[in-house]
Amino acid sequence: MAAVQHDLCSRDRIVATARHLFSTQGFHKTAMSELAQSADVSVGQIYRLFTGKDAIIQAIVLEDAAAKELELSKICEDATAGRITIEVAFVELARRALSKGDEALSFEIMAEAHRNPGVADSIGGLCQGFRDVISELACVANPDLTATQLEGAEELVLAFMFGLGHRTLSRPQLSEDETARLTGRMMVAAVRAL
Amino acid sequence: MAAVQHDLCSRDRIVATARHLFSTQGFHKTAMSELAQSADVSVGQIYRLFTGKDAIIQAIVLEDAAAKELELSKICEDATAGRITIEVAFVELARRALSKGDEALSFEIMAEAHRNPGVADSIGGLCQGFRDVISELACVANPDLTATQLEGAEELVLAFMFGLGHRTLSRPQLSEDETARLTGRMMVAAVRAL
Repeated sequence: MAAVQHDLCSRDRIVATARHLFSTQGFHKTAMSELAQSADVSVGQIYRLFTGKDAIIQAIVLEDAAAKELELSKICEDATAGRITIEVAFVELARRALSKGDEALSFEIMAEAHRNPGVADSIGGLCQGFRDVISELACVANPDLTATQLEGAEELVLAFMFGLGHRTLSRPQLSEDETARLTGRMMVAAVRAL
Repeated sequence: MAAVQHDLCSRDRIVATARHLFSTQGFHKTAMSELAQSADVSVGQIYRLFTGKDAIIQAIVLEDAAAKELELSKICEDATAGRITIEVAFVELARRALSKGDEALSFEIMAEAHRNPGVADSIGGLCQGFRDVISELACVANPDLTATQLEGAEELVLAFMFGLGHRTLSRPQLSEDETARLTGRMMVAAVRAL
């Protein structure tokens, strides 16, 4: 038990350290030996827990996905149960997209996903979870959508959320609060226009 | 003159080769010596034309920006002159976002921009050009927008276009044509809802 506990801690430490190193210096520039040293574990220990750097990226993606999906599902439940209006739900969706974590790391992971089918699969799965929530919310906003229109709404909202979560380089002037408030309202109107 | 011509060709060849190598194996993993060999130039020749790898990334960003801004300005001119409807303009905007080139390279460049202020500046400048066009189109769609609402519309459309241009990993089912058609209509409704 003590050994398992220790391994869990090492695992968390490796993933947290990898986040920092991949983000600040890039995935390819981070050597396993450097990761081991920074996380205070041996290289062998990393390889006992992960098949390689790809597997560490996948662990990062899954960790983030689980947290994000939980937040979005909560918003969705509140909206379908009528505890919040659909406009508030979309404002909250925008707010969650805006509060997205480390953009540098995210870009690093997505660049790697285009070279690495395993990483691409993890991201594909994560997006499917988002699509399910968006689709449910779109149906609340507009119950008359055809299947094709629903897919169009999914593309719009998913693209919007992705862009909003990666907007730093575009030098936005509007605060996160104002952005969420205005774009939430716009999203509802967009989904109702189909 | 012949020497200048030759240098121009080398420059183009270096940038084109760098696109390919940065995209397929990453920015940091691409050594100058490898780039030189693949582009059939000497390392010295690269350094005569570029201060370093950063400068090559900036050349790639500027090349893409110039092409993209020209397309968007054309759409904007057509819409303000009344040659196309505002819905057609937004459909065309979506279509241009969807036809965006190499996503892997784009992610690679943006990851680097978060570590490198010079690259971030190039992207910031590129986004300002996009913001100007989006802002003009939003005013055509809804001439009554306040300054804050206009900024909200800018954030929404810019985020949407960015996301649409990087949607491959999200496994979209809808064709590019259908996506552009549906989301173009939604964008107009969104901008009019403010």
